[in-house]
Amino acid sequence: MKAAVYEGNHQITIKEGRIVTPKEHQVRLEIAYCGICGSDLHILNGTEDKRMKLPSIIGHECSAIVAETGAGVTNLKKGDHVVVMPVKACGVCRACREGFGHVCANLQVRGIETEGAFQYSWTVDADAVIKIPDSLDLKLAALAEPLSICCHVVKRGGVKAGDYAVIIGGGPIGLMTALVAKSQGARTVISEVNRNRLKKARELGITAVNPIETDIREYVLQATDGSGAEVVFETSGSQAGVETMVLLPKVRGKIVLVAIYGKPMTVDLKQLYCYEKEITTSRMQEKEDFEKAIDLLNRKEFDAYKMITSVLPITEIMQGFQRCADPEGKEVKVMIDCHMNEKPRQETTNIKN
Amino acid sequence: MKAAVYEGNHQITIKEGRIVTPKEHQVRLEIAYCGICGSDLHILNGTEDKRMKLPSIIGHECSAIVAETGAGVTNLKKGDHVVVMPVKACGVCRACREGFGHVCANLQVRGIETEGAFQYSWTVDADAVIKIPDSLDLKLAALAEPLSICCHVVKRGGVKAGDYAVIIGGGPIGLMTALVAKSQGARTVISEVNRNRLKKARELGITAVNPIETDIREYVLQATDGSGAEVVFETSGSQAGVETMVLLPKVRGKIVLVAIYGKPMTVDLKQLYCYEKEITTSRMQEKEDFEKAIDLLNRKEFDAYKMITSVLPITEIMQGFQRCADPEGKEVKVMIDCHMNEKPRQETTNIKN
Repeated sequence: MKAAVYEGNHQITIKEGRIVTPKEHQVRLEIAYCGICGSDLHILNGTEDKRMKLPSIIGHECSAIVAETGAGVTNLKKGDHVVVMPVKACGVCRACREGFGHVCANLQVRGIETEGAFQYSWTVDADAVIKIPDSLDLKLAALAEPLSICCHVVKRGGVKAGDYAVIIGGGPIGLMTALVAKSQGARTVISEVNRNRLKKARELGITAVNPIETDIREYVLQATDGSGAEVVFETSGSQAGVETMVLLPKVRGKIVLVAIYGKPMTVDLKQLYCYEKEITTSRMQEKEDFEKAIDLLNRKEFDAYKMITSVLPITEIMQGFQRCADPEGKEVKVMIDCHMNEKPRQETTNIKN
Repeated sequence: MKAAVYEGNHQITIKEGRIVTPKEHQVRLEIAYCGICGSDLHILNGTEDKRMKLPSIIGHECSAIVAETGAGVTNLKKGDHVVVMPVKACGVCRACREGFGHVCANLQVRGIETEGAFQYSWTVDADAVIKIPDSLDLKLAALAEPLSICCHVVKRGGVKAGDYAVIIGGGPIGLMTALVAKSQGARTVISEVNRNRLKKARELGITAVNPIETDIREYVLQATDGSGAEVVFETSGSQAGVETMVLLPKVRGKIVLVAIYGKPMTVDLKQLYCYEKEITTSRMQEKEDFEKAIDLLNRKEFDAYKMITSVLPITEIMQGFQRCADPEGKEVKVMIDCHMNEKPRQETTNIKN
């Protein structure tokens, strides 16, 4: 019964986990799968240490089965298949009182400020847990959290059927943002320089161009009859992405900042002015975004298995982090199998696409 | 009958103007007053030379009286008091066809791309001319153009009664943005470092603070019960202004970029992300903004005379430009009296406040 503990100093150690009996309004989960997120890579790089109490179990993209329920839990029962919302809002700040708990002034994220899901047995607040259909493969269900981020992103972009949406950056969030936008009837294109990511986007049925080979501004103008994009999602976090994003929207078109920018960026604000373009931002997700993500996965809106490029046992989690950090970009989503040691499986699957 | 001709090379020359008989759908105006705008200063500094055919008569903030009407002009008659919209849209581009002629892809601005109002007799398209009430002093009416810019700005900010609005920069546009926001029931504060501009803001009844002396972020939080501003107008065009603007909005609050940023700016995008803040932009103005500005001036919503700090004859226009460019910021709006030589006036008024 293992747990992956971030110790600081670029180190994750596999330790024996604890079984914590759920208190009132808590449930104890047996984690099935938990994906490695870009922010987990940031954690391992030490950039989030000041937010955390170390050592700490990280991970926030999980699927699980309810093992025990505490007193007062009426919405869940043993055996339910579930996912977990990472947002832990204070409930009393201005943002919370105005209904925006996902941007709570005292926001805690499960798996960062508090204990997370890279472990077999996890005891959490029942109100953070969402039941999913039994028909939904638990491996796919572990994509619900990052996919819900993208549902929130697309909602913030106000995407409508027929809109032309450009997604700058073809990492996991870029790809899923494109898939969600497509599911709402938008025409989409991903702008990405990495060859493996371009290939993956095309495998997923998403049009993708390399802005080093193709003038992306010209491409978008041609695709939109000279008008420009209704919405541009900047998911790359790069200076080149920020320089491109301001060029692409149509009159009063919208840019959604999806990446988290570790340092101030250089932005050509005059480009925004010409067409009264707008910038909006998207942080975390709301419950309705989770519900939408679960629905998209359950009704197989797209082939989500193609997003999962490796599945590794928790004992090999450091290898998973190394694969994710590889600049070649061969991995999209690396899943950690957290129940590996409890119910032995035949082998670690390395899904080939 | 003088005309102020921009010759390039930082030079404006006073020449004899021409009387041009209006063609079909044109009117000939006798200009009363024309204000000096910040963009006129840019023109004199040579930054707009590539947009212009030199030599050219500049000026776009005028009031006038109709002297002659061309064939087919039904909405105006000789003797009407009027103002002139500087936007000249192509009518065929995407922006125009979608109803956004003010951000036309082929936009021409009267007084920049085409001849302007620093002259006694000006012949223009009748559809650019708006009749104003005879009761409105022509000196005040020459404020309608910059005030309409601010009406557009406040509209783009979506200001509602009870909102808290911060205006960064207390130049003419900052002051009038605050006045328009106040007229819509917003609580306002101007953040400005220049002592003369702070004084002028307070004379106009606008709360104003110096961010060098007062922590503007703390100030706004205190004024909003810890919430932050509904809307922030960045009118300063400075790097310091851009650094401040991202700190002040509340959850999902809005920043309106009002300044024109001559070079790319450094923006801390992560500050936007925390509260899902938004940036919007505002360019030029629409006819309804002019109508609103005329109404505000006519019903004396605020003491607009306080905006006019000097009135000079057209023969002294270069002195007016020098006064406007003075870094001490003693001037707000310098008005050029364009009918000076036709109907001699007692003296040049230097309004003291």
